[in-house]
Amino acid sequence: MSYFKDIAPIQFEGPDSDNEFAYRHYDPNEVVMGKRMEDHLRLAVAYWHSLAYEGGDPFGGRTFERPWYGDDMAAARAKADAAFDLFGILNVPFFCFHDADVRPEGGSFAESRRNLEEICDVFAGKMQQTGTRLLWGTANMFSHRRWMAGAATNPDPEIFAYAAATVKACMDVTHQLGGENYVLWGGREGYESLLNTDLTREAEQAGAFLSKVVEYKHKIGFKGAILIEPKPQEPAKHQYDFDVGTIYGFLKRFGLENEVKLNIEQGHAILAGHSFEHELALAGSLGLLGSIDMNRNDYQSGWDTDQFPNNVPEVALAYYEVLRAGGFETGGTNFDARVRRQSLDPEDLVLAHVGAIDICARGLKAAAAMLEDGGLEKMRAERYAGWDSDASQAMLKSESLDEIAARVEETNLNPQPRSGRQERVENWVSRFV
Amino acid sequence: MSYFKDIAPIQFEGPDSDNEFAYRHYDPNEVVMGKRMEDHLRLAVAYWHSLAYEGGDPFGGRTFERPWYGDDMAAARAKADAAFDLFGILNVPFFCFHDADVRPEGGSFAESRRNLEEICDVFAGKMQQTGTRLLWGTANMFSHRRWMAGAATNPDPEIFAYAAATVKACMDVTHQLGGENYVLWGGREGYESLLNTDLTREAEQAGAFLSKVVEYKHKIGFKGAILIEPKPQEPAKHQYDFDVGTIYGFLKRFGLENEVKLNIEQGHAILAGHSFEHELALAGSLGLLGSIDMNRNDYQSGWDTDQFPNNVPEVALAYYEVLRAGGFETGGTNFDARVRRQSLDPEDLVLAHVGAIDICARGLKAAAAMLEDGGLEKMRAERYAGWDSDASQAMLKSESLDEIAARVEETNLNPQPRSGRQERVENWVSRFV
Amino acid sequence: MSYFKDIAPIQFEGPDSDNEFAYRHYDPNEVVMGKRMEDHLRLAVAYWHSLAYEGGDPFGGRTFERPWYGDDMAAARAKADAAFDLFGILNVPFFCFHDADVRPEGGSFAESRRNLEEICDVFAGKMQQTGTRLLWGTANMFSHRRWMAGAATNPDPEIFAYAAATVKACMDVTHQLGGENYVLWGGREGYESLLNTDLTREAEQAGAFLSKVVEYKHKIGFKGAILIEPKPQEPAKHQYDFDVGTIYGFLKRFGLENEVKLNIEQGHAILAGHSFEHELALAGSLGLLGSIDMNRNDYQSGWDTDQFPNNVPEVALAYYEVLRAGGFETGGTNFDARVRRQSLDPEDLVLAHVGAIDICARGLKAAAAMLEDGGLEKMRAERYAGWDSDASQAMLKSESLDEIAARVEETNLNPQPRSGRQERVENWVSRFV
Amino acid sequence: MSYFKDIAPIQFEGPDSDNEFAYRHYDPNEVVMGKRMEDHLRLAVAYWHSLAYEGGDPFGGRTFERPWYGDDMAAARAKADAAFDLFGILNVPFFCFHDADVRPEGGSFAESRRNLEEICDVFAGKMQQTGTRLLWGTANMFSHRRWMAGAATNPDPEIFAYAAATVKACMDVTHQLGGENYVLWGGREGYESLLNTDLTREAEQAGAFLSKVVEYKHKIGFKGAILIEPKPQEPAKHQYDFDVGTIYGFLKRFGLENEVKLNIEQGHAILAGHSFEHELALAGSLGLLGSIDMNRNDYQSGWDTDQFPNNVPEVALAYYEVLRAGGFETGGTNFDARVRRQSLDPEDLVLAHVGAIDICARGLKAAAAMLEDGGLEKMRAERYAGWDSDASQAMLKSESLDEIAARVEETNLNPQPRSGRQERVENWVSRFV
Repeated sequence: MSYFKDIAPIQFEGPDSDNEFAYRHYDPNEVVMGKRMEDHLRLAVAYWHSLAYEGGDPFGGRTFERPWYGDDMAAARAKADAAFDLFGILNVPFFCFHDADVRPEGGSFAESRRNLEEICDVFAGKMQQTGTRLLWGTANMFSHRRWMAGAATNPDPEIFAYAAATVKACMDVTHQLGGENYVLWGGREGYESLLNTDLTREAEQAGAFLSKVVEYKHKIGFKGAILIEPKPQEPAKHQYDFDVGTIYGFLKRFGLENEVKLNIEQGHAILAGHSFEHELALAGSLGLLGSIDMNRNDYQSGWDTDQFPNNVPEVALAYYEVLRAGGFETGGTNFDARVRRQSLDPEDLVLAHVGAIDICARGLKAAAAMLEDGGLEKMRAERYAGWDSDASQAMLKSESLDEIAARVEETNLNPQPRSGRQERVENWVSRFV
Repeated sequence: MSYFKDIAPIQFEGPDSDNEFAYRHYDPNEVVMGKRMEDHLRLAVAYWHSLAYEGGDPFGGRTFERPWYGDDMAAARAKADAAFDLFGILNVPFFCFHDADVRPEGGSFAESRRNLEEICDVFAGKMQQTGTRLLWGTANMFSHRRWMAGAATNPDPEIFAYAAATVKACMDVTHQLGGENYVLWGGREGYESLLNTDLTREAEQAGAFLSKVVEYKHKIGFKGAILIEPKPQEPAKHQYDFDVGTIYGFLKRFGLENEVKLNIEQGHAILAGHSFEHELALAGSLGLLGSIDMNRNDYQSGWDTDQFPNNVPEVALAYYEVLRAGGFETGGTNFDARVRRQSLDPEDLVLAHVGAIDICARGLKAAAAMLEDGGLEKMRAERYAGWDSDASQAMLKSESLDEIAARVEETNLNPQPRSGRQERVENWVSRFV
Repeated sequence: MSYFKDIAPIQFEGPDSDNEFAYRHYDPNEVVMGKRMEDHLRLAVAYWHSLAYEGGDPFGGRTFERPWYGDDMAAARAKADAAFDLFGILNVPFFCFHDADVRPEGGSFAESRRNLEEICDVFAGKMQQTGTRLLWGTANMFSHRRWMAGAATNPDPEIFAYAAATVKACMDVTHQLGGENYVLWGGREGYESLLNTDLTREAEQAGAFLSKVVEYKHKIGFKGAILIEPKPQEPAKHQYDFDVGTIYGFLKRFGLENEVKLNIEQGHAILAGHSFEHELALAGSLGLLGSIDMNRNDYQSGWDTDQFPNNVPEVALAYYEVLRAGGFETGGTNFDARVRRQSLDPEDLVLAHVGAIDICARGLKAAAAMLEDGGLEKMRAERYAGWDSDASQAMLKSESLDEIAARVEETNLNPQPRSGRQERVENWVSRFV
Repeated sequence: MSYFKDIAPIQFEGPDSDNEFAYRHYDPNEVVMGKRMEDHLRLAVAYWHSLAYEGGDPFGGRTFERPWYGDDMAAARAKADAAFDLFGILNVPFFCFHDADVRPEGGSFAESRRNLEEICDVFAGKMQQTGTRLLWGTANMFSHRRWMAGAATNPDPEIFAYAAATVKACMDVTHQLGGENYVLWGGREGYESLLNTDLTREAEQAGAFLSKVVEYKHKIGFKGAILIEPKPQEPAKHQYDFDVGTIYGFLKRFGLENEVKLNIEQGHAILAGHSFEHELALAGSLGLLGSIDMNRNDYQSGWDTDQFPNNVPEVALAYYEVLRAGGFETGGTNFDARVRRQSLDPEDLVLAHVGAIDICARGLKAAAAMLEDGGLEKMRAERYAGWDSDASQAMLKSESLDEIAARVEETNLNPQPRSGRQERVENWVSRFV
């Protein structure tokens, strides 16, 4: 019998439903801007938070009592059963996982790899049966003690080697399962203390490692995207993949800016001192927007709270940037969110996703309405219209500082500021959210 | 008569002096690592904070009563007199200024330029007379209302033109005065609201502008460095020159990474979520370390407090990174710091610098002692020693992911973590600070 | 002719209107929980932000060009004309002011007082004519340089005296104008440096001062509430009225907890590390909730941004706490918010308020719907239901530690945690916002 | 054989020693302000961090490999052996513990209690033998899942009962071991979501619980102090014991301000937006300063990093406030600090303490020198000297607002601000640190 007992698959019942176990806004088949909502959002459940997380925090241990907790293959199979039950109840098209979420650590690298392959065979069968797909796979290179000082950026080359082998194994199963992306998040790729750290060496290691990952992707014919996930700190004091701007510089340095895209998370943007929409817009502008980790960070907490989203105005601005950048190609919306450690019941796990999915549906529809209306883009274009003239473009592209200066004096130029109309633009947005 | 009345030039009296108006640690002629301390630190007074700041804050206006406040050339000359009095009292070799600090705004661009040139003639005479030099010049493109929506990144091309003319004028006088660097800080190059902002256009404008600045530097034969100063926000909600990592990406994008270096400030590092030494070490590692703005940011305040430094252990770590990167070439130590608005008296202005200069001297000497001892670099080298072998370098440079993975399985590699010894390294540092 | 030219009074046109200059949600006469919306919200315009603010920030000066800027009584009268034009256009029932917002500083205390009285006579006439009322008056004891080290908590007793006289004058005019509250915000009641501060003396001064204010209130028969406004810092490094919890302790210490209530601001709550609803709920629980300063603080900025609110889910939670505490008595909703310094036009000033008022209307209606539905309170009551038994209350009120411990062992008590259902509660809230 | 193998007891060798395993500044017998340094600092090792912590963080599990890890009484005894070995090597006079640090959880409350008593008998023997004393005991009411929603403030009265029994048991053993204080830290006394929380009920529960603790203290004749430890958040989103100011209000509310004092931690002060010295000075001013948890919080991390202190200027300011408040009575300096999870070796554990102890010694000596010099207190007294006159005191104590106002006008009072001399005071401090 399922852990979720008699919870039936969640159906769309419309905004007036008062059934907790129904979607009020997410109708997979509703067409938004010419595409089914399911195909826009490309929702995914995160295996680690929803199946593997045990309810611990830095001051307390396991609070959940899931029957599949354990360190052997039988537990891993039971977990997979519950996972696909959950995917089915939620009717989401995708899931995501790390190796360590799905298989027990083996006594050797080879055993860990075989465990992973064995459980991925289980996944393959279930995916075949249910139609659920893999949005992305990834390697957990932060939990085991061997990673404590980094994976690719470890002071010890043996750890680098172990990391390389680990990523290869995870890329292999991701490829085999038809995964649409492969993600790298470097929670230990950074430092606890600058004093014992060699930034120059570690950057070179990181660049070489990522180059090998890209090379291997092409070698095996993996067609998905390679995605890096920015986060500024936590667990490390400083992490090298700090934010979108930093990663762009890293990719340029190693000539990888056309090979790698980004998986951007709300909570990580907040920790880096940015809004989510900023990071999305910047990635869009740089051609790096790949996928999103949808969650919410508590604004009063200084760590990564990974809560389910519940603020429609914020989510709408996020999807506005996604749609403006052309929408997802291989990417999607992964709920990198976990129920609070006091939310013990199976119902909590299901309903947290249900609420979040409805929030995403509302956000997407508002974003689409704003984009179809076009009001914001029109205001933006008008603000910069002066730059569209030939003279302005000529100045930008070919005039020198002294040529421009001469013209400023000759024409006694005295430009007057014009209103930025911020509140009017915000009011316009408020109509839609 | 001088504003500073009978305050005599500050002399070095050694650590046991209890004279408030003496250096206890800064002896310009003391030789540290083979160089005079004055030539290491290259100390500069900031004209804006020490002469132009009036004691205002967001909730209150002018508290200071300097006799040189005013908007005409006479006031500007009186201010210059006081400035050089202060430089003389402090016996610092350098100063720094923005155009708006030193001259009244004119009724036209040309008049503003002529005002600037006139006051710079005054400076030239005083510099000749006193030996004081110019560490860097810069343009204030943030205070006047015309800059409210940016300078180079303004939606209005006329403002871009005005900015170009302004920078040209400031570079000209900097060059004429023998300035050793030219600095760009873009307090308005960013946005208040992402909603009315076109990130793509603004980045292109910023890149084109900086390219013109570099081109003009070469045209006039300016031998100093062009420096960008990172700051993540304030006054703008988001500023494009967020931090060292972000600027590196920007420079790479526009092919300017060999033409431009950085002027790094403690307070701005803190606002970006970094330690000062992190930003310095990263810039050093990327070959971008140019100069520093020495100050201190209150750790409990979320804005740029620009206080004089007073924490030796922190300052020592900063200079350690400067020395490790080879020390200053054209750069130096500019006090981008202001007395608190309650510090009304001329004595406060002098003594704030005296205290800060002694802190810098202590920090530099501690940093030099650490570097000469070599203990830290030895520990760091040992930690990464595994990477020095040919096999490790071969793996890094030429092995593919699957080759490494095969080796991991063949050798049943099971690397064990080794202590990072952070507290031992910290204890070692504590011996010196 | 009005500064606002031909902007007609804003009318309610309903949610489908696409007229920028209309209310879509704020209908003053709509009855919500048995009361007109106008009487619930009790909206007020803040004189300082909307009339006196000039567009400056720490890095730039005046950007606005209001015809009433100036330092004489004529300018003050012109400002008053514009103010009441704005109140009329917005159709808000209240306004709020500091002395320094409305009158020029005089050459002596007496002249400043007479200026204030003179302009308040102007106000009285306009209030009579338009029906606009005064939500609260207050004294600006932070902008003038005399207050730089505090008002009541100044090291100089003469400043304390000047502060006492200032508050008396402001209370007198507030009383005369029928003001419904008198507010104290102590932006300089705190310190820049703990090193030169005597916390013990300053606390005693603050307590004595507030006691005198309360005494004077009774003396003149002022029936409104005395309100303190918490803020943790800015302009000072530390401010004594840090947050609700701190002020409660202060009031208890001086026996004033039944005489004084609080004016709570979103932005100040955020700076103190709290959510707005936390501070409101805590004040409600302690019987201290008086009035609110409605605005929004940028979550990525570490200073007080005083933006107009635009996030309905957040505003709804705030009004939920207001309604749960019984709604406003003398208090109301003051927009302690200013247009951004790039929003130069009269239309910006009007529309910023229009958008914010609609956000408040939506928030209030959502809050009322939640309260009328009762779902949240029901869930809350169920969670604590165990405490309603006589045995539980007996334990709470009269059992000793060892009695309880004996029972725990005797009954082999082993309590099991129950789900906190946080996400389910959040989903429930999302239905309404 | 000891876990610490051949590490000999740490001896004082003076500042010139280059022996890592020596004190350079901490000489227990050195007399400072008339008291042995050991008797000033009253140093304590924290059992939880130094013996029980396993090197985990939110993204990774155990990194340490201590031989005493385990869940039975044999492991607890092995841990106690290692603990007293460590105390002996460090030559510190005190230790501190939670119940959960020292004994395995039993199958019932009674069994847990018996386990605790059994291990405390072991402690008693070792204390007798070594002379090590107990600074304080406390109950861990945050790690086990039963506490997930609070202990005293739990929605379930059975948990309250279990908490009462737990504290009684911990107070009993603390009393029996001659502990000098009993500490309460409420990591779960707060909330994750305001939505499912009843602030009013929870405050009443907290007040009743603390009253019972105080009552029980008197009942058993425990002469030590009851201490509350402030922390604003983490693990909870909001914790009721937010900071010193908040706890003062709580104590006043329940009439406990003369019964309870505070245990103040640097890291918790930082998380609450305060400096450590602020919290200490405020507690001193309110008569609440009991004991300190000495550690350091990373200024760039938003969570509780619990690092060993290493910044002498900061530590000196902290001890300055301790000494100014009269020094410790029952309290002391507990290292609530843990080695980083990469610091695997026994040497790391020892040396982290050694370095921190030397930092404390330097801080204490600098603080004592400042206090003996008296310069700071003299400057402070001069700044407030105006308040010492009879007229000033009469105004403060008995004049009414209108009396003062009349005098202001009569005398045409126009007070002028005087310099706060902050930088001069900071320079003075820098001489000592």
